[in-house]
Amino acid sequence: MIKTALVGYGYWGPNLLRNFSKLPNCEMMAVVEKRSEIHSKIQVAFPNVVCFEDFDILMNNCEVDAIVIATPVHTHYPIAKKALLAGKHVLIEKPMTSSAEEAKELISIAEQSNLTLMVDHTFLYSGAVIKMKELMENGEIGNPKYFDSTRINLGLFQPDVNVLWDLAPHDISILTYLVNYKPVSVNAVGVCHTQNGIENIAYLTINFEEDFIAHFNCSWTSPVKVRSTLIGGEDKMLFYNDLDPSEKIRVYNTSYTHQVLEEEKNRLLVDYRTGDVFIPKIDNTEALYGVASDFLQAIENGTEPIASKELGLLVVQVLEAAQKSIKNNGSIVYI
Amino acid sequence: MIKTALVGYGYWGPNLLRNFSKLPNCEMMAVVEKRSEIHSKIQVAFPNVVCFEDFDILMNNCEVDAIVIATPVHTHYPIAKKALLAGKHVLIEKPMTSSAEEAKELISIAEQSNLTLMVDHTFLYSGAVIKMKELMENGEIGNPKYFDSTRINLGLFQPDVNVLWDLAPHDISILTYLVNYKPVSVNAVGVCHTQNGIENIAYLTINFEEDFIAHFNCSWTSPVKVRSTLIGGEDKMLFYNDLDPSEKIRVYNTSYTHQVLEEEKNRLLVDYRTGDVFIPKIDNTEALYGVASDFLQAIENGTEPIASKELGLLVVQVLEAAQKSIKNNGSIVYI
Amino acid sequence: MIKTALVGYGYWGPNLLRNFSKLPNCEMMAVVEKRSEIHSKIQVAFPNVVCFEDFDILMNNCEVDAIVIATPVHTHYPIAKKALLAGKHVLIEKPMTSSAEEAKELISIAEQSNLTLMVDHTFLYSGAVIKMKELMENGEIGNPKYFDSTRINLGLFQPDVNVLWDLAPHDISILTYLVNYKPVSVNAVGVCHTQNGIENIAYLTINFEEDFIAHFNCSWTSPVKVRSTLIGGEDKMLFYNDLDPSEKIRVYNTSYTHQVLEEEKNRLLVDYRTGDVFIPKIDNTEALYGVASDFLQAIENGTEPIASKELGLLVVQVLEAAQKSIKNNGSIVYI
Amino acid sequence: MIKTALVGYGYWGPNLLRNFSKLPNCEMMAVVEKRSEIHSKIQVAFPNVVCFEDFDILMNNCEVDAIVIATPVHTHYPIAKKALLAGKHVLIEKPMTSSAEEAKELISIAEQSNLTLMVDHTFLYSGAVIKMKELMENGEIGNPKYFDSTRINLGLFQPDVNVLWDLAPHDISILTYLVNYKPVSVNAVGVCHTQNGIENIAYLTINFEEDFIAHFNCSWTSPVKVRSTLIGGEDKMLFYNDLDPSEKIRVYNTSYTHQVLEEEKNRLLVDYRTGDVFIPKIDNTEALYGVASDFLQAIENGTEPIASKELGLLVVQVLEAAQKSIKNNGSIVYI
Repeated sequence: MIKTALVGYGYWGPNLLRNFSKLPNCEMMAVVEKRSEIHSKIQVAFPNVVCFEDFDILMNNCEVDAIVIATPVHTHYPIAKKALLAGKHVLIEKPMTSSAEEAKELISIAEQSNLTLMVDHTFLYSGAVIKMKELMENGEIGNPKYFDSTRINLGLFQPDVNVLWDLAPHDISILTYLVNYKPVSVNAVGVCHTQNGIENIAYLTINFEEDFIAHFNCSWTSPVKVRSTLIGGEDKMLFYNDLDPSEKIRVYNTSYTHQVLEEEKNRLLVDYRTGDVFIPKIDNTEALYGVASDFLQAIENGTEPIASKELGLLVVQVLEAAQKSIKNNGSIVYI
Repeated sequence: MIKTALVGYGYWGPNLLRNFSKLPNCEMMAVVEKRSEIHSKIQVAFPNVVCFEDFDILMNNCEVDAIVIATPVHTHYPIAKKALLAGKHVLIEKPMTSSAEEAKELISIAEQSNLTLMVDHTFLYSGAVIKMKELMENGEIGNPKYFDSTRINLGLFQPDVNVLWDLAPHDISILTYLVNYKPVSVNAVGVCHTQNGIENIAYLTINFEEDFIAHFNCSWTSPVKVRSTLIGGEDKMLFYNDLDPSEKIRVYNTSYTHQVLEEEKNRLLVDYRTGDVFIPKIDNTEALYGVASDFLQAIENGTEPIASKELGLLVVQVLEAAQKSIKNNGSIVYI
Repeated sequence: MIKTALVGYGYWGPNLLRNFSKLPNCEMMAVVEKRSEIHSKIQVAFPNVVCFEDFDILMNNCEVDAIVIATPVHTHYPIAKKALLAGKHVLIEKPMTSSAEEAKELISIAEQSNLTLMVDHTFLYSGAVIKMKELMENGEIGNPKYFDSTRINLGLFQPDVNVLWDLAPHDISILTYLVNYKPVSVNAVGVCHTQNGIENIAYLTINFEEDFIAHFNCSWTSPVKVRSTLIGGEDKMLFYNDLDPSEKIRVYNTSYTHQVLEEEKNRLLVDYRTGDVFIPKIDNTEALYGVASDFLQAIENGTEPIASKELGLLVVQVLEAAQKSIKNNGSIVYI
Repeated sequence: MIKTALVGYGYWGPNLLRNFSKLPNCEMMAVVEKRSEIHSKIQVAFPNVVCFEDFDILMNNCEVDAIVIATPVHTHYPIAKKALLAGKHVLIEKPMTSSAEEAKELISIAEQSNLTLMVDHTFLYSGAVIKMKELMENGEIGNPKYFDSTRINLGLFQPDVNVLWDLAPHDISILTYLVNYKPVSVNAVGVCHTQNGIENIAYLTINFEEDFIAHFNCSWTSPVKVRSTLIGGEDKMLFYNDLDPSEKIRVYNTSYTHQVLEEEKNRLLVDYRTGDVFIPKIDNTEALYGVASDFLQAIENGTEPIASKELGLLVVQVLEAAQKSIKNNGSIVYI
């Protein structure tokens, strides 16, 4: 039985508490939440949970094995560091930290202490991404050639981070999980429609050594909500529409091949193929339940979870490079 | 009666011939087409048209007032130059030329000779773009804040130009026509999935002095066909879906405003508003008929057509800068 | 403060309890639920509510002013009758009763005792139906000409009532609320794919004295889920798609007019008009909150609620006639 | 080489002429068209075709082997009868005749003379219907349980026949072709919004001995255009959307099974299964080319075409019964 405490009971905290509470190998012991006025509400719903205002009390509690951090991004690093140093396993909300340096330090501490450190990239545990991983792992799609993601809607302007830090972690984590190529560099551009210098529309490209490209279109200011990704493979192509209630993944039996015609002055011949479309049934289990389950299993077995610390670091590295590229007029920034 | 000749009877030529033939103030006299084997087919359909293999014969014909050029892009400049120097009015297929330098020279000749020089940016004459222009001109949308266009499908790989030169002229011309801000610079990235170094996927951003951004997503390798554009205004937002047979334009009564709260440490407050959606009825007249009509009217009245030579030049300047940016790893390139 | 008790805590009961509990002029006192094992669960969520297994205890309780009945259809009549005779106001789940005779008797008792009797036709309180009522009341649509509704999906087979009794009450109540014409007769056909003789697919037509027709397509065995209604008016037409998350109502500025050409041997000339489409913003307040609120207000003010007992009776009359028509091979049955 | 003549050059005639002209084993000799002013237009496009005003001239022409009839419905019978009696093979536009009696007489003459008599139910030769036939023939769908078709739009009001005679022949022929059960009776209702008594909205149900039902929703007065059919099978279900440009057929791996639980008082237990969706690629060959080709092949080989005379008769029998049912207030009418 892993004794677990949650830090932060804002937007995402209740979902974490609810899912961890369902797991048989977990005992949710405590919630840390500054706003003491909501403690009673938490305790009505979860009578066995103790509520604290102060995080430090928890650190001195030897009983707690694991800490789940769902606080604002800039507090991830100090809280996680304290927890790791106190010998606790740690799950952090995405994005992992505000900088790659912070993420690297946390990874180093976790490794030295043999502690599980994991990032809550929830989408990796959704039925749709699990299905795409399966299709790509078993070779059905062929070598991936591009990843093109759009995540736009009329969204809440974040006061401290730009739209990429807010929305792109989902898609960057999916890319990193599905495609085995190593990101090399990024280009990013954006625009800010307010006076605070924080971009509300941004476009990010990740470059690779292979002839593969990944592009991300993020906006808080679109009248239509779009959450879709195209993944082109040599043999088939995937369309992932997260807003479709029942048909999230479409597998297009579509591809193109090319050959150079030597006899015709090196003319390039491109052949297209379009075929059937296949819409696989997707498992509807709540993704966050998978996150909680994988975290506990990683602790118990000493294995690396799917949303590993290295994946979490890579997402932060890409975001950091993207921000630098935006400030440098879209110039290439190496990761 | 304006005596007109068409040069090039490939993919687009028949459409031009058909539309020009419908106009009362136009007499289609001749078609120049190298493949003499299709001359008879042209003459069956248009008995009054004479067919030539060689363009030069036409230049010495004093009767011809205007030349319509629908040949491959790299031939636009030499043919148009000859025609202008021979005193003919000229309509060129998009994109106008292979380089801005060529376009500028053609403009200079046309101006010196008081000849009409126009580029066939057909979309500017479509019911959808005319409706958007009307909505934006009468102030209903408010100051434009962004333009985000996607034009992707499983498309024919062009052997000589990349996907931006092939697909983006449509959207760049629409942007240029609808939005009065002056493009300043571009960033572009792309990927080539063949050995000929010609990008089949590319992303282009156009930067402006104002807090306005334009982004273009172009691909020949998408299993789904998308031709859509979002235009965000201060008061309303437009969604233009060119593939919808009956509802191409949606006007979202959606916007956001922001204010700085002085009392709360300069905190930024953003307010959203979502409201009704309006789908105006669109005129279905064939856009190319409007092109032909505007060309003839410009000749007759000495006025500038909507798809003006300056607009055509600007499109080429953007494409040229984009190509340079792609080759420079996405760095900013000024126009 | 109206003291209210809920009878039945199955599928719909929790929603009723939650919504009534939110109303300031209501005190939820008790829940009657046979399955005593779930009483504790109810009391955790609603500590002020007392739970009973037996309905009769409640009847002898002088404090209770109003009863909300959410039990199986065939129990509506006996429970409601007891409650009314005990001087309680009554809200019944749809459909009101198993037969028109039962409904009429309840209405008679309620009228004699000046008690509020209302049926929970929830859809009448949804933002979409409220908007359609508004559009039709202010004359924007013109005289209604037809109502065509489809409500199909892979749905739970009910063990005791056919698909019309299960699904059509929603649409019949909407029709009855929106259109002022009086139903005269029905035709209905159906098919049963099991051995119990209960139709899982059925088609219902309601006939009127006016040249107006209403048709209902109901199925528990469709692979696609459809919940849509077309309402044609003389001036405009409505399309109501309850599954669209943000665009439930579309107003088509479409109509047709006809005239008889006397000079041409009484030839009929029909003229079409298609125009803009308008998608009004819809209020998203939970419809059931409106139901609860209207019930309490009707009690307090002695007024008739929107989902009145007469409307509830009419729905049952149509269903009863439909069942008779199905059994008579689709023959017309007068209401 | 089969020498063929076309009678009637209205809406559909040009398509027939164009497709028959493409076939290598056909020589289009003549077109009969009363409006002599369009004869020259026909001859420009098809120089080898002779045009007549009068049908009878053609009958005395011994050279003509086959007659294609594309005239108004009420003229099908007299023209086809003359042609058959003159020893010509006959293809008739759908619906075959105005009455079953007429159709039966034509069939009788054709059989006595060993002549091919075929009805142009074009949809049977479309890629979508061919694919559905294939899926149903190879048993993938299982026993069919229902057929539910909707064909509505803002359509041309026909002056002489109601909306069922105009639109339903398509869907009735598809039903008849795909499903092997024998129609037994019909119920139909409708409404007329003009003064000529011709229904512009109508609903038709076809009943069978099996627990199978077919329903048809037809309207000339819908603001939205719908052309879709659901076919439920015991194992899988089909959704056919003729308006989708690239995904006309969807195969849902969805079904339900039921069993009677003896131990629980004969309670019925229904189990649902939902699974993947499959969108097969459809052949895009023009359906009318298949019609022409099948007609010629039937003549050459003395075989029965897919759109056989018996199928054509059955469609007319259903329409005739439907009209009778409408006039009898929706009562059942046996075929």
